[in-house]
Amino acid sequence: MKKLINDPRAVVDEAVAGMAAAHPGLLTVHTDPTFLVRADAPRQGKVALVSGGGSGHEPLHGGFVGHGMLDAAVPGAVFTSPTPDPILAATQAVDGGAGVLHIVKNYTGDVLNFETAADLAAAEDIQIRSVLVADDVAVKDSLYTAGRRGVAGTVLVEKIAGAAAERGDDLDGVTGIAERVIANVRSMGVALTAPTVPHAGEPSFDIGEGEIEIGIGIHGEPGRERIPIEPADAIVDRILGPILDDLPFSEGDRVLLFVNGMGGTPLIELYIAFRHAAQVLEQRGLTLERSLVGNYTTSLEMQGFSISVLRLDDELVELWDAPVQTAALRWGR
Amino acid sequence: MKKLINDPRAVVDEAVAGMAAAHPGLLTVHTDPTFLVRADAPRQGKVALVSGGGSGHEPLHGGFVGHGMLDAAVPGAVFTSPTPDPILAATQAVDGGAGVLHIVKNYTGDVLNFETAADLAAAEDIQIRSVLVADDVAVKDSLYTAGRRGVAGTVLVEKIAGAAAERGDDLDGVTGIAERVIANVRSMGVALTAPTVPHAGEPSFDIGEGEIEIGIGIHGEPGRERIPIEPADAIVDRILGPILDDLPFSEGDRVLLFVNGMGGTPLIELYIAFRHAAQVLEQRGLTLERSLVGNYTTSLEMQGFSISVLRLDDELVELWDAPVQTAALRWGR
Repeated sequence: MKKLINDPRAVVDEAVAGMAAAHPGLLTVHTDPTFLVRADAPRQGKVALVSGGGSGHEPLHGGFVGHGMLDAAVPGAVFTSPTPDPILAATQAVDGGAGVLHIVKNYTGDVLNFETAADLAAAEDIQIRSVLVADDVAVKDSLYTAGRRGVAGTVLVEKIAGAAAERGDDLDGVTGIAERVIANVRSMGVALTAPTVPHAGEPSFDIGEGEIEIGIGIHGEPGRERIPIEPADAIVDRILGPILDDLPFSEGDRVLLFVNGMGGTPLIELYIAFRHAAQVLEQRGLTLERSLVGNYTTSLEMQGFSISVLRLDDELVELWDAPVQTAALRWGR
Repeated sequence: MKKLINDPRAVVDEAVAGMAAAHPGLLTVHTDPTFLVRADAPRQGKVALVSGGGSGHEPLHGGFVGHGMLDAAVPGAVFTSPTPDPILAATQAVDGGAGVLHIVKNYTGDVLNFETAADLAAAEDIQIRSVLVADDVAVKDSLYTAGRRGVAGTVLVEKIAGAAAERGDDLDGVTGIAERVIANVRSMGVALTAPTVPHAGEPSFDIGEGEIEIGIGIHGEPGRERIPIEPADAIVDRILGPILDDLPFSEGDRVLLFVNGMGGTPLIELYIAFRHAAQVLEQRGLTLERSLVGNYTTSLEMQGFSISVLRLDDELVELWDAPVQTAALRWGR
């Protein structure tokens, strides 16, 4: 596996420096400890959103820092949770007096380290709430996780809760919106190839030339089963069925369909998957109201994709449509 | 090479159908022949922009159809020029009486087929102009090309000329802006791996585990040399030097720096490359005013990247910043 890097130990710091150089109007980067905040932080009177986790999932989370989404992102080493120190420092840096919401993906290390940071922040009289994203229906308990894993649905939580904070909702309100997204989103993924962690230098798992892993995690954690590769439509059926049955989504539901690339899958293939997923939604009587297609929660260069489906209501649609200005997700009115 | 596809012959049609399903407010898809137009086409009195070329470079060009950028995109088969028929049909569909600009990447097939379509459109009294993008400094003449190849700089031409058309410039004016971008942008790329065309089923070229190709084309055409892999910063130096020397860019120039992923390279690596490229610009006395980082002109799942540098002036900055609403590039005010 060839990589476009310098020192494997400098990957995160150099990438963060690149983000700072590319997006000076959006982001400010802090080092020692490492975290990114929106350029205009702290915003007085606005609830601040902080997320983070292991690196290697870019643009998650640093690409989502900015107006209408996150106030700070805390990148750990590749596939490794950030320690409490930078989480605390980021929380302090963005607190504008209205409280801070931590958006945490359900991995044991993330949960523990965000909890510790939240306790330390609370001891400094910062109001703190936390929400836990656990949208992956593939497996219960996994490498690094008790319960379900948090995967690409996190992007939707960050966008929609970020819009609620931007319109001026208070901490309970923003937390409630985040919890509503979490309650209504379900995801599942597939891998065609394995990612290689830079300092490891070897693929995270072995997968045969003709095989795919159904229910893969975003760190290459095992899923439900290893099967021979199938046509795209059949693969979509295999992961979309369990997603729709889980909530369950019902006829008449309005949904956002998110086809997320894992990093190494061409966009042309993601749209092929989207096409069939949209057909399945229609067959089930669901109404496709909003869409997102692209590489938003990746696993380094892994080939594969995930599908997330979010059940919408009028308020969630309004918050989804609200302006956002981040490196990776941006639109206006 | 595993792919997320159904029938290899249906790849383009299914992906285009996926785009239509994902972006109904932005795009309308025509089949037989296949092309995409913005949902509100034709816009009376606005100069219309049409681009196209072989598929496999997504989001180029379909992802750039919408307000402030292209009026139509014409996708050929993977790595194969579209025929004159769909180019003509797209031209007719978007003509709003103010004329149509064809933005053509310099490949022999594209040049011929766009010329034929332009002749046919002119015979129907549609005012037509064409510009040829040839930004790749790596090689002169290549597989499929006489002269220099058109690569990722095309995205910048489409964005900036699209903004000029949107603000109401006439056909000569929009053409002049496109030509100014073309005159001031230079690019070069590197491949770490080879892409695999779906119906071919084999990688387009052989490249060793420890090798990279300097000056690669976006169809995997040979570049300048094959060398052992180096640290990212050294690779950036190898391609950025020739780019800067070519125009040449001079001390005091204001520039847009675009680090483009070829499809299979993680975003975290693109930012590592951006970081060093920005350092080199600073050392050369250039002023980094605008940035773009991501997968915008790809070569299927090829790992690699290109750098484009565009010399800016006040008007080009204003047009770059103007609102754009497309599937792949979108921002507001």
